[in-house]
Amino acid sequence: MAPAGRPGAKKGILERLESGEVVIGDGSFLITLEKRGYVKAGLWTPEAVIEHPDAVRQLHMEFLRAGSNVMQTFTFSASEDNMESKWEDVNAAACDLAREVAGKGDALVAGGICQTSVYKYHKDEARIKKLFRLQLEVFVQKNVDFLIAEYFEHVEEAVWAVETLIASGKPVAATMCIGPEGDLHGVPPGECAVRLVKAGASIVGVNCHFDPTISLQTVKLMKEGLEAARLKAHLMSQPLAYHTPDCNKQGFIDLPEFPFGLEPRVATRWDIQKYAREAYNLGVRYIGGCCGFEPYHIRAIAEELAPERGFLPLASEKHGSWGSGLDMHTKPWVRARARKEYWENLRIASGRPYNPSMSKPDGWGVTKGTAELMQQKEATTEQQLKELFEKQKFKSQ
Amino acid sequence: MAPAGRPGAKKGILERLESGEVVIGDGSFLITLEKRGYVKAGLWTPEAVIEHPDAVRQLHMEFLRAGSNVMQTFTFSASEDNMESKWEDVNAAACDLAREVAGKGDALVAGGICQTSVYKYHKDEARIKKLFRLQLEVFVQKNVDFLIAEYFEHVEEAVWAVETLIASGKPVAATMCIGPEGDLHGVPPGECAVRLVKAGASIVGVNCHFDPTISLQTVKLMKEGLEAARLKAHLMSQPLAYHTPDCNKQGFIDLPEFPFGLEPRVATRWDIQKYAREAYNLGVRYIGGCCGFEPYHIRAIAEELAPERGFLPLASEKHGSWGSGLDMHTKPWVRARARKEYWENLRIASGRPYNPSMSKPDGWGVTKGTAELMQQKEATTEQQLKELFEKQKFKSQ
Amino acid sequence: MAPAGRPGAKKGILERLESGEVVIGDGSFLITLEKRGYVKAGLWTPEAVIEHPDAVRQLHMEFLRAGSNVMQTFTFSASEDNMESKWEDVNAAACDLAREVAGKGDALVAGGICQTSVYKYHKDEARIKKLFRLQLEVFVQKNVDFLIAEYFEHVEEAVWAVETLIASGKPVAATMCIGPEGDLHGVPPGECAVRLVKAGASIVGVNCHFDPTISLQTVKLMKEGLEAARLKAHLMSQPLAYHTPDCNKQGFIDLPEFPFGLEPRVATRWDIQKYAREAYNLGVRYIGGCCGFEPYHIRAIAEELAPERGFLPLASEKHGSWGSGLDMHTKPWVRARARKEYWENLRIASGRPYNPSMSKPDGWGVTKGTAELMQQKEATTEQQLKELFEKQKFKSQ
Amino acid sequence: MAPAGRPGAKKGILERLESGEVVIGDGSFLITLEKRGYVKAGLWTPEAVIEHPDAVRQLHMEFLRAGSNVMQTFTFSASEDNMESKWEDVNAAACDLAREVAGKGDALVAGGICQTSVYKYHKDEARIKKLFRLQLEVFVQKNVDFLIAEYFEHVEEAVWAVETLIASGKPVAATMCIGPEGDLHGVPPGECAVRLVKAGASIVGVNCHFDPTISLQTVKLMKEGLEAARLKAHLMSQPLAYHTPDCNKQGFIDLPEFPFGLEPRVATRWDIQKYAREAYNLGVRYIGGCCGFEPYHIRAIAEELAPERGFLPLASEKHGSWGSGLDMHTKPWVRARARKEYWENLRIASGRPYNPSMSKPDGWGVTKGTAELMQQKEATTEQQLKELFEKQKFKSQ
Repeated sequence: MAPAGRPGAKKGILERLESGEVVIGDGSFLITLEKRGYVKAGLWTPEAVIEHPDAVRQLHMEFLRAGSNVMQTFTFSASEDNMESKWEDVNAAACDLAREVAGKGDALVAGGICQTSVYKYHKDEARIKKLFRLQLEVFVQKNVDFLIAEYFEHVEEAVWAVETLIASGKPVAATMCIGPEGDLHGVPPGECAVRLVKAGASIVGVNCHFDPTISLQTVKLMKEGLEAARLKAHLMSQPLAYHTPDCNKQGFIDLPEFPFGLEPRVATRWDIQKYAREAYNLGVRYIGGCCGFEPYHIRAIAEELAPERGFLPLASEKHGSWGSGLDMHTKPWVRARARKEYWENLRIASGRPYNPSMSKPDGWGVTKGTAELMQQKEATTEQQLKELFEKQKFKSQ
Repeated sequence: MAPAGRPGAKKGILERLESGEVVIGDGSFLITLEKRGYVKAGLWTPEAVIEHPDAVRQLHMEFLRAGSNVMQTFTFSASEDNMESKWEDVNAAACDLAREVAGKGDALVAGGICQTSVYKYHKDEARIKKLFRLQLEVFVQKNVDFLIAEYFEHVEEAVWAVETLIASGKPVAATMCIGPEGDLHGVPPGECAVRLVKAGASIVGVNCHFDPTISLQTVKLMKEGLEAARLKAHLMSQPLAYHTPDCNKQGFIDLPEFPFGLEPRVATRWDIQKYAREAYNLGVRYIGGCCGFEPYHIRAIAEELAPERGFLPLASEKHGSWGSGLDMHTKPWVRARARKEYWENLRIASGRPYNPSMSKPDGWGVTKGTAELMQQKEATTEQQLKELFEKQKFKSQ
Repeated sequence: MAPAGRPGAKKGILERLESGEVVIGDGSFLITLEKRGYVKAGLWTPEAVIEHPDAVRQLHMEFLRAGSNVMQTFTFSASEDNMESKWEDVNAAACDLAREVAGKGDALVAGGICQTSVYKYHKDEARIKKLFRLQLEVFVQKNVDFLIAEYFEHVEEAVWAVETLIASGKPVAATMCIGPEGDLHGVPPGECAVRLVKAGASIVGVNCHFDPTISLQTVKLMKEGLEAARLKAHLMSQPLAYHTPDCNKQGFIDLPEFPFGLEPRVATRWDIQKYAREAYNLGVRYIGGCCGFEPYHIRAIAEELAPERGFLPLASEKHGSWGSGLDMHTKPWVRARARKEYWENLRIASGRPYNPSMSKPDGWGVTKGTAELMQQKEATTEQQLKELFEKQKFKSQ
Repeated sequence: MAPAGRPGAKKGILERLESGEVVIGDGSFLITLEKRGYVKAGLWTPEAVIEHPDAVRQLHMEFLRAGSNVMQTFTFSASEDNMESKWEDVNAAACDLAREVAGKGDALVAGGICQTSVYKYHKDEARIKKLFRLQLEVFVQKNVDFLIAEYFEHVEEAVWAVETLIASGKPVAATMCIGPEGDLHGVPPGECAVRLVKAGASIVGVNCHFDPTISLQTVKLMKEGLEAARLKAHLMSQPLAYHTPDCNKQGFIDLPEFPFGLEPRVATRWDIQKYAREAYNLGVRYIGGCCGFEPYHIRAIAEELAPERGFLPLASEKHGSWGSGLDMHTKPWVRARARKEYWENLRIASGRPYNPSMSKPDGWGVTKGTAELMQQKEATTEQQLKELFEKQKFKSQ
């Protein structure tokens, strides 16, 4: 197989999926650019598209080379509630950068929106939809190829997003950052999927918050929910590139390591090849990643599915399949690593003998206390939250 | 402290070190660009400076923003024995890229050479020195600020490198990729340092192959060797950003995880702050990193030593000290992570309960067999090596 | 509280439980006597009662001193199908030993039977009930205080046991070696409990195969099943003293460490105090242990529940509560361990940095293959089993 | 090989060792009887020989059956300084019990003494020797076969013990509870061995405080010291049955898990077979165990060395070599465990995913502070110690 992009005119996202093609998404922007020095943890906003466009363009290029068919605009949290007056310029610049790089290969541009900072305090449908509509206007003006509503913890808000986006006439994908236990109001994944499709989403699935294994469990529940309701939609998964078997239902945010101690959890390229295969076997055809997915992780998806797709990504010119690049090493025991069986069976070590392999989430024990109350607005003041937290903390010791 | 680079005219490397300044090195190029899709594992050569200069420039920029005072030319293994005819163009292009970025901040350009592929087979001083001289000619023509001879497993070859480089009249730094047990011929670190300084190196230390803790133990032995010999030199350390307590004397190459399963060993920014402090306390003033050091690791050095240096790096505009950026989070238990004590004391988990915390190096049990023979040219043919390997493998089970 | 046994005449088992008393069971015989050299792993039969009565008596004595209120006859697998002609003498001798020791304190004698080796091949009710009846005849002759039917993987066979035992007029306890997923035919714990109570058991619960945490989850499901069916019974739990979070539904037998590598899983006395408290809070009043429970584990139950019971066991004369015996140590840091908070919060290490914390059960991947077929008698020959196993093994890699 | 004890008249300890025989020691008394309910942790005294002779006799019997050739009197700390007036009766009763059981097989009786509680405060040679002499008088009266001076942290005191014991004319073995770093005054193991042999010991080695691997490293250093000094002595090792790679020089006492959380560190029978083989290969011929060594661990020594010795211990009638007893199991995957390769290569799991594999000793960082001062009598009062401890604790954080 020649390492080459697909030539020819671009097909739309639905055309691709309907013809059975695998669409490879892109990877991590916020977390990756945080490590490169362009995003601030805590804020997690994409002002880099204006301040440091070269850095953002470079990351888009890396994902393109790695095999991504989608350049998602770097517009996470780029709505008025998080970025004030800057939001409009940021959205416009993000579209231009995505389009510029997409033009260099076989990739589409997707305009992306996410949950608002408003919903958890005021479930004000009109205000929230307006925030979505403002971003949408920029995407329409810049003529993105399709739209993604991602990172929703509550299906109600995700539905509002889908309802807003379909007004544009463009295809809409919707992913929630939930696990098998469902959204933060307790709506199970199957029902979430049904509501999103009924609202108009053509593609549904999950992104962020959980590792590939857990995320595919969630997608499976979504698939079963759709089948039970006799609804059709394409499936999509963009999980973390972190191992998180120890999460509670709120995902990796509650792990004590978030966000500055996640390193030992990072997936290898082999972990991701396994994920890509399992996603494919489950019927997922839009396969990408979220936080922690570096370009080499995306390349691993493209390499695993090269037999199905018929070609390798550009970046495979710099990668021997299953470590084959090691076969020239002077040491025989390093050469012995140049094979699939080696990497598939190796139980890699952490190098940290004083550390455990699992953590208890900070929400541990408070899930049914503070967390639920937060959702139900029964604890509206900071003071009440603190008191609850202290009480729960005491109990969970 | 304002996050700002140092204004004013540039002082030379020795001028800085002699005045007691901390010089911050840069980080990982080969491993980092491999993950970005521009370097091939196994070959580990820097043709990206020609093929994808934007990607290399971007990485230089990230290190500059993170606080690096040195832009080392991306010329690792870029000598005639590894790259054939391309070597000259690669060296020239690498110098131009390094200079271009160095010009945007307070950084010097260092021309870098490393051990040859020839030495382990033929200890031909003349031929090896010629390989070094060819690279040096480009560096002189491009007028780099100083020179680094790095990644030497044998002090004999490192001395040849230093002897070649000092002919240019430029300051020479020399680092070996050895641990506390010394070079692969058994020369202890203290003696290695003495020989390098006697050969003309102004700066000596270690790079690559071992984690920060082990590397500083090695530098300490070098320091003691120099003191015993009443020699003076500046100390330098550029270790791995991987935890490797389980290495044998040949370092991380022999770990079964090298190079595609090292993820769970990656250091956090807090690990690196600890390293920077310990290096400083030991008297090391040229502090940087090698494989695995991402821009945020370099920034961690600059932040830890900000009190001593009087300023923060540019990239700290996107980083709250000790997680302070989390103090606005909606969840009280995430806000609780916005402090030094939290990150210093957290024992982060791997998320991999089926994996161990330590590995046995593949060279385990063969150190005194195959490996030594390889060094002593007593096993010159591939076949002999294989036989030895099989025999040793059997014994070590 | 004085460390002393309870004086006075002995109340029967139901009298105790109905008055709300905590009844403390005994611990491990097979596994403990295997380590002492009197039981053969693989066979797991109790011929020691005849061959080495002193060793068995001594273990009974240790449990009595530790606080056990029940001396269970060491008659596990002592039926005709496993022990041929020896079975009758073994049962008689076991009763005598149990009675002799019970007479030295406040303990009752319980005659114990377990699942047959026959059921998995031939579900021949008459034959199986006859095996039970033969053992029962000895117990009746020796006038044990009550009866325990334990270690059943299938509720159908357990019901046959209960139906047989109640004919004696003695109280019957029935425990299954199942987890929350239910018996090996898939009958859920709640339904198992209901069937056992309807068959005549006064006490129901679980023993063996799973760790305390998982076992209490199972008991909880049993309790809920009984409540839903408006049935009443006393609850009993006698779990492993091994941590087994990684079990599949067949329990610790399928863990690769069974039976000769379970050491690092052994519970501490503090783990067992936690278990005793949780069992008590769940409403379990017959609290003991199974494989791995040494005398000090039983003492831990008695010490944890001493406030409720009003007295400490005899063996507490040799045990300071929560490590208080260390308060005279010459080293201040060892004295600092003489307190509850220390032991409750300590994350104890394995001393095995090259080992993982979890294993994949050998039945992993075969649960829905070989295992189910074995149950369904669709694979009756050894050869068929082997073939299935090989096929499954291949798939699960 | 028939599982049978050695027939015939008993040879003395030196006669055995000089003829090249392997002598198998016994195992753990204090720790094992603590778990059985007869010894109090913290005190660690052997009053059970009087209070519960059956329990002590039973443990002796188990070791005898497991293959021990030595019944060591259970007289640890049974000197006047620890047990006041009871000491004499305890020593006498312990001798009688040991002799009684030794008479049932091929075992000798060894009278055992250990370091005093006095030495660390007052290095009063006359007083300490008197304490030893009092115990010796009982041993002489009871006519034990030889003497063991064990568990000495300082060679000076061990030498006093040897000097006292040889006055009896009986053979003397001397073992110290030290690691490769030497005794607590810094005397290296080689020198310790030399001094002990010069004082009259015929057998020297180590016991307690460290795991088998570390202990054999120490014995190796002793052996080298003796060879360098051209002295001859038999070598002896009786290590812990706990994995303690994370100890500081003071051994397992300083591990935070001591003494109530050591469970996950317990060696398997296979670990002990490996130890027995390595001890034998090193030239050690008196091979036994200390804390944590249960009867099955001693049997593992006897089974591993059965080819050299020509017979199996009695308890092997209840043990299939390398798990062979499993070959009748109904599950094929359990049968697959009935072989040497399986158990030798299995990396057993702890079942504790939230726990680390290594601990930092509590003396961590205080070794060169508090601990040394304690030795040097510069901190004589409790208050001074506490202050030092607090200071050191602060530094080591």
